[in-house]
Amino acid sequence: MTSGSTESTPAIHKSPLHDFLAPDSIAIIGASADPTKRGYKAMVGLIKGNYRGRIYPLNPKVPEILGVPTYASLDDIPGPVDLALICTPAATLPGLMVECGRKGVKGAVILASGFRETGPEGAKLEQQVLDAARAGGVRIIGPNTSGMFNLHKNVNLLDLRNVKPGDIGFISQSGNMLLALVLEAENNGHVGFSTYVGPGNQTDIGFNDYLRYLGEEENTRVATLYVEGFRDGQRFLQAAREITPVKPVVVYKSGATEMGKKAASSHTGALAGSYEMTVDVLKQVGVSVVRHSDQILPVAEGLALMQQARGKRVAVIADGGGQATITSDRLSDAGLELATLSEATRKRLADILFAQASLANPIDVAGTSDADPEVLARCMEIVAEDDNVDAVFLVGMFGGYHTRFAESLLGGEMRAAEAMIELARRCGKPLVIYSLYAPVKPPALRRLHEAGLPVYSSIEHAVKVLQALAERGLYLQRQHGLPLQESVAPREDMLAMFARAQNEGRDLYEFEAKSLLRAHGVAVAEEFVAHSADELAAAAAQFGEQPVAMKVVSKDILHKSDAGGVKLNLVGEAALRTAFDQIMTSCRAYDANADIRGVLVTPMARKGAEVIVGVVRDPIFGPVLMFGLGGIFVEILEDVAFRAIPLSRFDAEAMVDQLKGRKILAGVRGEAAVDKAALVELLLKVSSIVSAYPQLSELDLNPVIAYPDGLAVVDARIIINRAMMSV
Amino acid sequence: MTSGSTESTPAIHKSPLHDFLAPDSIAIIGASADPTKRGYKAMVGLIKGNYRGRIYPLNPKVPEILGVPTYASLDDIPGPVDLALICTPAATLPGLMVECGRKGVKGAVILASGFRETGPEGAKLEQQVLDAARAGGVRIIGPNTSGMFNLHKNVNLLDLRNVKPGDIGFISQSGNMLLALVLEAENNGHVGFSTYVGPGNQTDIGFNDYLRYLGEEENTRVATLYVEGFRDGQRFLQAAREITPVKPVVVYKSGATEMGKKAASSHTGALAGSYEMTVDVLKQVGVSVVRHSDQILPVAEGLALMQQARGKRVAVIADGGGQATITSDRLSDAGLELATLSEATRKRLADILFAQASLANPIDVAGTSDADPEVLARCMEIVAEDDNVDAVFLVGMFGGYHTRFAESLLGGEMRAAEAMIELARRCGKPLVIYSLYAPVKPPALRRLHEAGLPVYSSIEHAVKVLQALAERGLYLQRQHGLPLQESVAPREDMLAMFARAQNEGRDLYEFEAKSLLRAHGVAVAEEFVAHSADELAAAAAQFGEQPVAMKVVSKDILHKSDAGGVKLNLVGEAALRTAFDQIMTSCRAYDANADIRGVLVTPMARKGAEVIVGVVRDPIFGPVLMFGLGGIFVEILEDVAFRAIPLSRFDAEAMVDQLKGRKILAGVRGEAAVDKAALVELLLKVSSIVSAYPQLSELDLNPVIAYPDGLAVVDARIIINRAMMSV
Repeated sequence: MTSGSTESTPAIHKSPLHDFLAPDSIAIIGASADPTKRGYKAMVGLIKGNYRGRIYPLNPKVPEILGVPTYASLDDIPGPVDLALICTPAATLPGLMVECGRKGVKGAVILASGFRETGPEGAKLEQQVLDAARAGGVRIIGPNTSGMFNLHKNVNLLDLRNVKPGDIGFISQSGNMLLALVLEAENNGHVGFSTYVGPGNQTDIGFNDYLRYLGEEENTRVATLYVEGFRDGQRFLQAAREITPVKPVVVYKSGATEMGKKAASSHTGALAGSYEMTVDVLKQVGVSVVRHSDQILPVAEGLALMQQARGKRVAVIADGGGQATITSDRLSDAGLELATLSEATRKRLADILFAQASLANPIDVAGTSDADPEVLARCMEIVAEDDNVDAVFLVGMFGGYHTRFAESLLGGEMRAAEAMIELARRCGKPLVIYSLYAPVKPPALRRLHEAGLPVYSSIEHAVKVLQALAERGLYLQRQHGLPLQESVAPREDMLAMFARAQNEGRDLYEFEAKSLLRAHGVAVAEEFVAHSADELAAAAAQFGEQPVAMKVVSKDILHKSDAGGVKLNLVGEAALRTAFDQIMTSCRAYDANADIRGVLVTPMARKGAEVIVGVVRDPIFGPVLMFGLGGIFVEILEDVAFRAIPLSRFDAEAMVDQLKGRKILAGVRGEAAVDKAALVELLLKVSSIVSAYPQLSELDLNPVIAYPDGLAVVDARIIINRAMMSV
Repeated sequence: MTSGSTESTPAIHKSPLHDFLAPDSIAIIGASADPTKRGYKAMVGLIKGNYRGRIYPLNPKVPEILGVPTYASLDDIPGPVDLALICTPAATLPGLMVECGRKGVKGAVILASGFRETGPEGAKLEQQVLDAARAGGVRIIGPNTSGMFNLHKNVNLLDLRNVKPGDIGFISQSGNMLLALVLEAENNGHVGFSTYVGPGNQTDIGFNDYLRYLGEEENTRVATLYVEGFRDGQRFLQAAREITPVKPVVVYKSGATEMGKKAASSHTGALAGSYEMTVDVLKQVGVSVVRHSDQILPVAEGLALMQQARGKRVAVIADGGGQATITSDRLSDAGLELATLSEATRKRLADILFAQASLANPIDVAGTSDADPEVLARCMEIVAEDDNVDAVFLVGMFGGYHTRFAESLLGGEMRAAEAMIELARRCGKPLVIYSLYAPVKPPALRRLHEAGLPVYSSIEHAVKVLQALAERGLYLQRQHGLPLQESVAPREDMLAMFARAQNEGRDLYEFEAKSLLRAHGVAVAEEFVAHSADELAAAAAQFGEQPVAMKVVSKDILHKSDAGGVKLNLVGEAALRTAFDQIMTSCRAYDANADIRGVLVTPMARKGAEVIVGVVRDPIFGPVLMFGLGGIFVEILEDVAFRAIPLSRFDAEAMVDQLKGRKILAGVRGEAAVDKAALVELLLKVSSIVSAYPQLSELDLNPVIAYPDGLAVVDARIIINRAMMSV
């Protein structure tokens, strides 16, 4: 099968990690003659794994370990050392980093724990280790790492039994998860690994660096990551943007229930930082996100070995009605579609299948294959040739016909397997195979596996693979390479406005926030700020017969309605004056010391569909845009979409399409659809503005009212970056 | 391990299926000497399976098959025949049923297809077969069945290889699904089957009968069903109500995407018949519903072998932080909770674990077990003794310590396994075990399996088992045995009202529907029907200053608002008269021929939380109640709960608690919670009324407005049973 990539792997390595993840020489600091110690096991892993470079065990007490002469210190080693595996306790590390630097060691794998994860003292020690390493030019894997291997270079510092070289590069913050995948692969019998690294505390090297390395590493066909926490999410997104077009990237992110909600000052703030935000921004950059741990290996294997799909239209070929129905259910859950087969395809199928076969997708061969398993391969070929089909899914008992019906069918099964292998090589579409005989590994399925066609033993896992292949294909076609929204040029008057607010120790007033949007081309209705009752005549003149709302302008009154600081549906100067007096009286009663600057007079917006647009600066992923439907959708259902800023136009469109409540925007109960183009422009514009003003910390446009023709920003709130205030 | 049951299996068989599913003699009609034919394979299955009863092959052409003498016809057989396996084509069946009846055959397994599934001709033939069978007192499995086995009685009509006798009874509309489970069990190595039946077309015997049989069958510890469609859902629910207290029942229902929505005249009608409705009513009667096909076997095995949990509080013991986090995520997804361990428990754990261990749940032993796997069993015992813990979940590499760390640990692992087995026998709580070594079946895990403690190879599957154990435990404690809502006594005046509407060929008027509710004790505001403008003075007097709504009363105007037939917020006679004239003018313009009976004057309801209560008579499950939040929740999000009528009080409460939008009823943005007790009473009352009036076909109370103190039924619609109209 061809790799998912349509571009070749870059020939020149850019990642410095190659220098020591494929080392010519390895020192083992804390090498041991005790078979239970890591300093012994690593030597076993290297020797049994036929490591071809030089091994230098460091141990001043014994002359040799496993026949390899020992050294008392790094300085005693005659030649260069690319990689040091350090098995000694945490306290030895700062000194050892100095020695490694002196020796010119390129990378150190530090197993010891007892650093940041234990508290402030440990964090201090960790910083000392990092400082010493940086001073000496040594890169650090860990500390607190489970170790690493690079099987295609015969480097195995783990002494794991039965781990097979193969296509999957794996970076995992859980050593148990590596072990689980290795055992699952052993049972599966056909999956193998290229490089494994446990990033540990990510003191020096983080997921972004490892991802770049795997992206370049020629034996890795899929980069697979088990992530508990990113240290620099923005760099990771950047690395993923570069790697996913070249190679599939699979991420399983744990901690769905632990991240919880932050106490926050805005709706956006309350929902940002959630697990779903992480999923959204990873998908945005083309990562295949896996939600269940038992799907990691099937999805990684599928993406490593199979062609991505051009779209979501799947043709299902089944040899039993029950499993065909289950398959339809699961495809629908996964957002995939049953392809509508062309008339020509149906006719070709009719020519080779029994009369009682079902030719509508899912195709049920209805016994035709019971005496002739090769007919399945012919069906696959026919549907693969249909332009309406993006992927082919074989479901049933293939591989077991000779067991189930007659031994004599084995030959036909083997010929069918060869035909499928040949078809997969040339048809440019993925062939995904589920067989209920997969657990017992009959000959035809073994043959498919050997030829690089995976066979799945669960319909559910096979459908997840199809979903990943389709999402990857759609990402590469629709999203990859689209320009990202460029920053607007910051305006002097707006910078001055931010500076004033910073000097006054407050966030932007609503009218200021709206003026920022207006300054950069967002159509926000003209408003009027009255600092005293005397200015209301001019306001009344400006709006005429148009009903207006009046809201208090005060940095001290955050909940304006609660303070009686909002009056609606006012027309004419008299009404404005009355409302002004009422607002002033109420707000002074609410907070006698409030600094009240006046009132904002703003036209009432027509009724329409309420949406919310928000921005936070996430501590991990940086500026993130949120879009959702207003009211209960955001408050109760948390039905929102996230994207890291800057956005592409595709991102903005996909945010709207992603909402569960999107039907409301498309028009319900006979109402017209809202102006999606205007929403998309607003999202893109907000992305551009946020990129230009680092002073902006959080933004909430809530509500924005969307109409069939345009939209109205009814309320706007911008929180200032407090860190920048003291500057 | 003990069975999930707390009651003993009834000693006396009530199901007539025992007579032929454990037959003393079997005739094979259409027995064959051709090894590819079912009439040969069944004989192989019986002979190889050491069937101890008599086998009578029917074949007029050969003297013996596999050494067993043949007969030309049933009449030639000397002794009685309990069961006939019929391998001949569809057309032979009506005649054969007469012969079977004459011979006193108790049950016939009919393999042939070509009946109802092929169209009207086939349906007619199927009816002929059924009539003949009934006349002769013969029960039918199938037709179009995949066959049956009863392994504990050595009856195997399938010739499946390697299928092990065991605890799981399986009824499956897909033969491939049986094959898939058998192969999965073979790979697992420890699961076995008791009775299998393919119900085929369910012409005579349906899922309800098979369920009763499995409930009584002493070798079956869990009844497992793959269902494409029930023929009589009401009987199935009744059977399940009787069996689930005695024995776990697992159902995988396919067709989630196919059932779709019916074109319907009410919101309730539009949502009823959905997959989620089926799931709700099955759970209502204690069925464990499985949503993914690859969870069927793990969940069935877990329920067969393990004690149910008393509640949802799970204690997790892990030997690695990563998998502990994943486990927490999945428990939360499944609606389970991490138990809060008592101080005493934490202290006892601290006494045996390393200082760096995490004693908060999930418990991370942080390396303590690496040199002493027995510590895991001790941890399990300690947490099992905590009253705050309902289930214990071991997560990690148990069984593989001797492979991973040192061979010498094997003894400790085996001792730990024995301690776990002993603990499971006496602690009264389920011990669920996931091991990443499960795929390679190391000795300690084999020992656990042999002793009836399943070990799962997927965290996700293990969590599904925990969920099923907890849901079953909670069902038995909270729901099983609660009285079901009794029917009200039908009132003469209401029966007369239904009769009037039936005679007039119309559904109930809104005021009639409300009077039905009022007649049976639902607090519906008093209203006034004015047949002419002259009666409005009395209406105005009745309501005084209270604002009222006015709605046209006409069987011909279904969309009253569209016709201009609704006026709101009216006070005083003058306003009523004006509104009356406007309504009459508009409605006559809308439909000149409409039969207009007058107007309904009804008090305006205060604002509150809108809910919807509905009833449909589902063709499968009979009367079903629906409850949901109004507006977009029902229209866009389809956030509704279903229960088959009659309800228990628990059912009514659970319907309210089940909604995703339940937060709205609990009070959002500082609002008070609505009166849940009043909602529950309304649901129970509607259940009682529907049971009393078969004339009622559909009911929609939409909206009902719920307040902190009571509720208001604003609109009511009752559709008449058209089938009863002609009576």
